[in-house]
Amino acid sequence: MDLYAEALNLHRDRQGKVSIVGRVPLKDKHDLSLAYSPGVAAPCREIAENPEEIWTYTGKGRTVAVVTDGSAVLGLGNIGPRAALPVMEGKAVLFKEFGGVDAFPVCIDTQDVDEFVRTVKLISPAFGGINLEDIAGPRCFEIEERLKAELDIPVFHDDQHGTAIVVLAGLLNALKIVDKELSEVSIVINGAGAAGVAITKLLMNAGARKIKVLDRQGILTPKLKMLDASKQEIARLTNPEGVEGDLVQALQGADVFIGVSVGNLVTKEMVRSMAKDPVIFALANPDPEISFEEAVEAGAKVVATGRSDYPNQINNVLGFPGIFKGALLVGASAITEEMKMASARALADLVGPNLSADYIIPGPFDPRVPNHLAYAVAKEALTQGLARRQMDEKALRAELDLD
Amino acid sequence: MDLYAEALNLHRDRQGKVSIVGRVPLKDKHDLSLAYSPGVAAPCREIAENPEEIWTYTGKGRTVAVVTDGSAVLGLGNIGPRAALPVMEGKAVLFKEFGGVDAFPVCIDTQDVDEFVRTVKLISPAFGGINLEDIAGPRCFEIEERLKAELDIPVFHDDQHGTAIVVLAGLLNALKIVDKELSEVSIVINGAGAAGVAITKLLMNAGARKIKVLDRQGILTPKLKMLDASKQEIARLTNPEGVEGDLVQALQGADVFIGVSVGNLVTKEMVRSMAKDPVIFALANPDPEISFEEAVEAGAKVVATGRSDYPNQINNVLGFPGIFKGALLVGASAITEEMKMASARALADLVGPNLSADYIIPGPFDPRVPNHLAYAVAKEALTQGLARRQMDEKALRAELDLD
Repeated sequence: MDLYAEALNLHRDRQGKVSIVGRVPLKDKHDLSLAYSPGVAAPCREIAENPEEIWTYTGKGRTVAVVTDGSAVLGLGNIGPRAALPVMEGKAVLFKEFGGVDAFPVCIDTQDVDEFVRTVKLISPAFGGINLEDIAGPRCFEIEERLKAELDIPVFHDDQHGTAIVVLAGLLNALKIVDKELSEVSIVINGAGAAGVAITKLLMNAGARKIKVLDRQGILTPKLKMLDASKQEIARLTNPEGVEGDLVQALQGADVFIGVSVGNLVTKEMVRSMAKDPVIFALANPDPEISFEEAVEAGAKVVATGRSDYPNQINNVLGFPGIFKGALLVGASAITEEMKMASARALADLVGPNLSADYIIPGPFDPRVPNHLAYAVAKEALTQGLARRQMDEKALRAELDLD
Repeated sequence: MDLYAEALNLHRDRQGKVSIVGRVPLKDKHDLSLAYSPGVAAPCREIAENPEEIWTYTGKGRTVAVVTDGSAVLGLGNIGPRAALPVMEGKAVLFKEFGGVDAFPVCIDTQDVDEFVRTVKLISPAFGGINLEDIAGPRCFEIEERLKAELDIPVFHDDQHGTAIVVLAGLLNALKIVDKELSEVSIVINGAGAAGVAITKLLMNAGARKIKVLDRQGILTPKLKMLDASKQEIARLTNPEGVEGDLVQALQGADVFIGVSVGNLVTKEMVRSMAKDPVIFALANPDPEISFEEAVEAGAKVVATGRSDYPNQINNVLGFPGIFKGALLVGASAITEEMKMASARALADLVGPNLSADYIIPGPFDPRVPNHLAYAVAKEALTQGLARRQMDEKALRAELDLD
């Protein structure tokens, strides 16, 4: 049986991938009187008096909403909120299994930005964080910005920042292999959707200075007036001089290629035209921009893909479970650029002395990953004064079973 | 330690009363490729092609939203959606423990009817039913009516219909004790909020013909122009002749008193003024309209309260878990008057030959209750042609472990 048939059977058998279960006993009248009427009035009164107590007496601080409008689901496109539900359920399972985070799928039946933002805001009281998922660009940028401004809990569009964090972690290690500096290398990012935009910004924040970003029309340049706002911003940030060109031209002499586009766009010749010891992150799924084998044959020194059947899988599951776990642990009010950077560094550091061209990033089942990222995020939240719950270093490490 | 202190400790210890857990294994890359990318694309595609397949491949058909605006929480009043969260979590636990139904608390941060209705509609794709909870009247009536009209899944305001169903079940049995007919008895309902209105309508649908309903101003009569729409409707239905009077007057010669108001309003003298063998349902919590002891001393033949420390507890937990279980089992598109009536009769019938003045309704932990109600609701849904999933009698009984 092929994978898709097997997946269909699994989904049919299970009728959904998450369940909601009780955390309190309910065996007799006394249990009932504590968990429900009349005892439940006590926490209600506490929260009515002081709304911050919702973090103490409810699941808010443990619970994340996985929210979509279904407008950019996997490679399937705008299939809507109903067809997106299996992905949101899957994400919720990953949150729990990898990060111990309770996550609930929320599929919103509108593709109007105002209405979407308003809906998320209205249902936010029960959640300690919002994970945006599979929302098309450029709408995803406005949605995230507005929700960040209006809510006092983390809002994190995983297709953007989760991807960017894992890419940065991999790139930091890849550059050690080829002995180059992030601030010196010239980087070509192909794809200017959610992932491409976020990768560009995070790499720049991490010190990268020479980046060219391309969409289907070629290198983004401020001269192109028809660009949407997010591409305009990227063009201004990365290409003020207005260099023009296609992917072939962009890759000539480049040190790093990062593809978040579609399969089979990059040829061996294009890799051969790059600088010495090229680094290739061909992340399109299921078919990379260039296959692992071809990239190696053309002289790439380090190759990463999105695939689990090759070395160096750039997989978001390395990021979001630990990142939200850390944010929730201290009740962070946001996931900042500094926290993203800290989690990328923590992820890169886990590779340690075993670093090699075929091992630049931990595997998705490396059990150390979630808690190390959680630690990095929580510590940064405490440092930045964005934590509701104060913890010292020792308590934090103990809570996460580190040391 | 008193109950409230114990409840506070429990809520603080558990940090919320529900968790979200995975229903699929996630131990290796193969598991991951089935539950998430790339395998998850298969159910997504099926649903994109045929939206009804969301019932087959996701948790929609198992999952209920417990939705509030926090405007009428327990006896605490309008404490808002945040302070209402412990109650919604408690309700979710009861759904699971008693009915095996996955229920998730949704606290909506608005008290505007349009915005509330729109929000519930927008988040409805992931849910197979909507349980409205602790929403103030008269807004709760409009919200429920509009959602019922706009959604193709059951919408059920438990404070109305759950209460009404359990009251009707108890009353059917109480009238057997006193050997009176529902169509003949004169009934006084004190309280014209969500519960009072729903009880009135369900009793009339069940055959009651002589009902007087009172709010704080006295008997509802169409002459009172300041009444809201729901009270106007009740006044027209129950009191077209325009009888006026207070509770003392209303009770003279009445057979049945049903209180859904506040404590200590009814005196022994008032009970003594009623017809022979009066039936008293004093349901205000925690203090009934008249205490169990006083009602008995004054000659009441059958007394029910909302309290767990006296016989005949009228408790909503007898209703909603089984009712939603049955509705979800067959994918019912609504919970109709006929289904409510069928569940009330099923609940009354469970008392069986042990019927006595002190046992007119099963206890909240009677293990037979949820599945018997589920059967009644599912069967009625099939009969009415409102079931998405067809099942014959035998399959239905087998599914619910009956016989």
